[in-house]
Amino acid sequence: MLQKKVILTEDEMPRQWYNILPDMPNGMNPPLHPGTGKPVGPDDLAPVFPMNLIEQEVSPQRWIDIPEPVLEKYLFYRPSPLGRAYALEQFLQTPAKIYFKNEGVSPAGSHKPNTAIPQAYYNKVFGTKRIATETGAGQWGSALSYAGALFGLEIKVYMVRISFDQKPYRRLMMNTWGATCIPSPSPETNAGRKMLELDPNSPGSLGIAISEAVEDAVTTPDSKYALGSVLNHVMLHQTIIGLEAKKQMEKIGEYPDVIIGCAGGGSNFAGLALPFIYDKIHGKQIAVYAVEPASCPTMTKGPFVYDFGDTVQMTPLLAMHSLGHAFVPQPIHAGGLRYHGMAPIVSQLVLDKMIEPVAINQLETFAAGVTWARTEGFIPAPETNHALAMVIREAKKAKEEGKEKTILVNWSGHGLVDLMAYNAYFEGKLSDYELPDEEIQASLVALENFPKPVCK
Amino acid sequence: MLQKKVILTEDEMPRQWYNILPDMPNGMNPPLHPGTGKPVGPDDLAPVFPMNLIEQEVSPQRWIDIPEPVLEKYLFYRPSPLGRAYALEQFLQTPAKIYFKNEGVSPAGSHKPNTAIPQAYYNKVFGTKRIATETGAGQWGSALSYAGALFGLEIKVYMVRISFDQKPYRRLMMNTWGATCIPSPSPETNAGRKMLELDPNSPGSLGIAISEAVEDAVTTPDSKYALGSVLNHVMLHQTIIGLEAKKQMEKIGEYPDVIIGCAGGGSNFAGLALPFIYDKIHGKQIAVYAVEPASCPTMTKGPFVYDFGDTVQMTPLLAMHSLGHAFVPQPIHAGGLRYHGMAPIVSQLVLDKMIEPVAINQLETFAAGVTWARTEGFIPAPETNHALAMVIREAKKAKEEGKEKTILVNWSGHGLVDLMAYNAYFEGKLSDYELPDEEIQASLVALENFPKPVCK
Repeated sequence: MLQKKVILTEDEMPRQWYNILPDMPNGMNPPLHPGTGKPVGPDDLAPVFPMNLIEQEVSPQRWIDIPEPVLEKYLFYRPSPLGRAYALEQFLQTPAKIYFKNEGVSPAGSHKPNTAIPQAYYNKVFGTKRIATETGAGQWGSALSYAGALFGLEIKVYMVRISFDQKPYRRLMMNTWGATCIPSPSPETNAGRKMLELDPNSPGSLGIAISEAVEDAVTTPDSKYALGSVLNHVMLHQTIIGLEAKKQMEKIGEYPDVIIGCAGGGSNFAGLALPFIYDKIHGKQIAVYAVEPASCPTMTKGPFVYDFGDTVQMTPLLAMHSLGHAFVPQPIHAGGLRYHGMAPIVSQLVLDKMIEPVAINQLETFAAGVTWARTEGFIPAPETNHALAMVIREAKKAKEEGKEKTILVNWSGHGLVDLMAYNAYFEGKLSDYELPDEEIQASLVALENFPKPVCK
Repeated sequence: MLQKKVILTEDEMPRQWYNILPDMPNGMNPPLHPGTGKPVGPDDLAPVFPMNLIEQEVSPQRWIDIPEPVLEKYLFYRPSPLGRAYALEQFLQTPAKIYFKNEGVSPAGSHKPNTAIPQAYYNKVFGTKRIATETGAGQWGSALSYAGALFGLEIKVYMVRISFDQKPYRRLMMNTWGATCIPSPSPETNAGRKMLELDPNSPGSLGIAISEAVEDAVTTPDSKYALGSVLNHVMLHQTIIGLEAKKQMEKIGEYPDVIIGCAGGGSNFAGLALPFIYDKIHGKQIAVYAVEPASCPTMTKGPFVYDFGDTVQMTPLLAMHSLGHAFVPQPIHAGGLRYHGMAPIVSQLVLDKMIEPVAINQLETFAAGVTWARTEGFIPAPETNHALAMVIREAKKAKEEGKEKTILVNWSGHGLVDLMAYNAYFEGKLSDYELPDEEIQASLVALENFPKPVCK
């Protein structure tokens, strides 16, 4: 019988994360203090993050040991399986081999706990009692709530209002793990009140919710803030995905020709891709695709600039692809991909030609998700559907070209609490939307006087 | 580091199911034809089930080969992990070792695909084009929809109306896998119309939905019916759970002192327990607990009788513990445990003192589920919470007695699409309900003139 899944034993789970910083082909532009325009130092970040995570954010070490208590919690659901999508291959009649790393097996149903667990751990060790955070579709908020329960930390989540209303199940997951979740913009912070004054019916955005959570963290005793994507230490933690996948492929004598992940802030994509990009930097031929929604085309249409990570301009300036910090994306159903910026590491690697960004429209992604569900069984998250749409494009191309090709995709999460989005799709209520260039230009005006990053 | 999960490789997955029929200590009472009072023959069942499954229902063989195409589909999510609940043990400060077989890893989120897949397969081989079925909380309906998608069968699901309304996500899962799901009682069958005439606002029951699905199957060309629990062949298919668990425990040199599962129709419980009950029949000392809701106390308060499996009296008479086929249980949130009868195999083994039934009230089960989620992470289904409440009772008893004891529980499914039930619990809207004896007596009156099974 054909092998369906490649499984690692607990002993085979990697014991270190891979830090790509020392290997970046053209280095990185440092985060800048918005007031002084100078690179931020650890002390600037100390009100927001615990010092152990700040150190990790800028660590020059290639390999970083995963602390034992984090390994123990990883084992609750890791190593995750690497599956072979035979049924989809057969359905598509493609000569391509499709492997998928199933990150939907975690309690929160996505890859997010891979960084939520270490962030909760480092905060706990540092002495933090309470973490404030934001969440878009709810994947991150639920993952941090889960991790908070494991380490006994109080968690407060500011959830983008439109998702709060559309996705009650995510909030209920957070409550079940003992966390508090409120819609953002909220009347509980200055940032939230300011937004509510401008528009009492604001649907919210990730940028606004970040502003609220940061403000909450810096103004509440014993509290810190945590971010589920974008930052270097988040990418670092997520490399457990790619490191496992690499071992799994080695076990069966395979290596991918094509790597695919969806990208909102960049963390699930980077988590899978970075350990392979290390090989690409050293000469290996691989195509690496980061797939974003056509309605929020950060990498394909946003310039590489210094911009704020949040709307109310509380964060340092990050060198990244951005549509502008004031940009409020269309309320498409892949809430986890609705973010104006992109992780600086991913952004830089796009410039470095290590990553090829692709924008795909919503209807194609849901069609891909339904095809996946009806062949491979597991129902994917709307975010994951973006990656799967690209997998299907590549598999069809392989068929046209008559090429056997090995595709590896990050199956970043399941869609069981996103089924209302599938319902809307089946009822014909979803539509495509390509962001007009004029709207992008308009939203970028605000960045004109910002410092410019070095583009090599 | 402590081992958290025992994993089997795909090669180690069992290749045969265990059939307990030849090992039943006191045999079984045969199903009877309600008209003649004589045992039903294969031909009586032929309009309802394909002949290959009818043969399996009465097979005297102890070991039955799992067909290769079924094995292939099992590998989509099996072998399932056997976890050790260290975090719960620590929280309870118990000397007991708690092992849980995680059946929540399937695409449908429960153990139900273990029988949905072979049932779809045998129907496909037999030439069936379309299957009608019923579902309570939706676990079975979604599992059969998933299996139908894998084998290209059309699936029609009659879902108990109260769950249809309360649990839209389950219906959406079915739709995503391409199945049709309508609320029962429906105007589409005689059985449904009859119930709607009596009560246009009927919340429905599993018994009524079974009547509708059976009627649909026997009156629609190329259609058969499928049942997700109760019958012998369903128990058979589910033994993959216990056979895997046994291998996994052997691997680490363990054997359970206590086995626990929740029981509605009996399938997840039997799936785990039967391979161990084989040992118990042969002298091994094990406590085996089947946990049911206090509001639907089939085993603890229902007599062992001949009764119909459905409300409208279309099925053969089965020898089982029953509260009466017309009994409509309280709308508690563990919809999968709201059934008037119990699998004949499980019922007989209760009589045989191989299984000890326990009834637990709703609030204790939700408290157990929340404790589980906040220690072990995975959020359990309301049905599973019944088993977990018993685990916690046993773990506390072990602490009181100072006994090291090995507990094995079937973690039958996750609760991600049942979060509204947790919400009701947190909001204090759930209550306990013990079914009054008078109500049981009243509902059993209808059985007075039925044939009586032999009780040894």
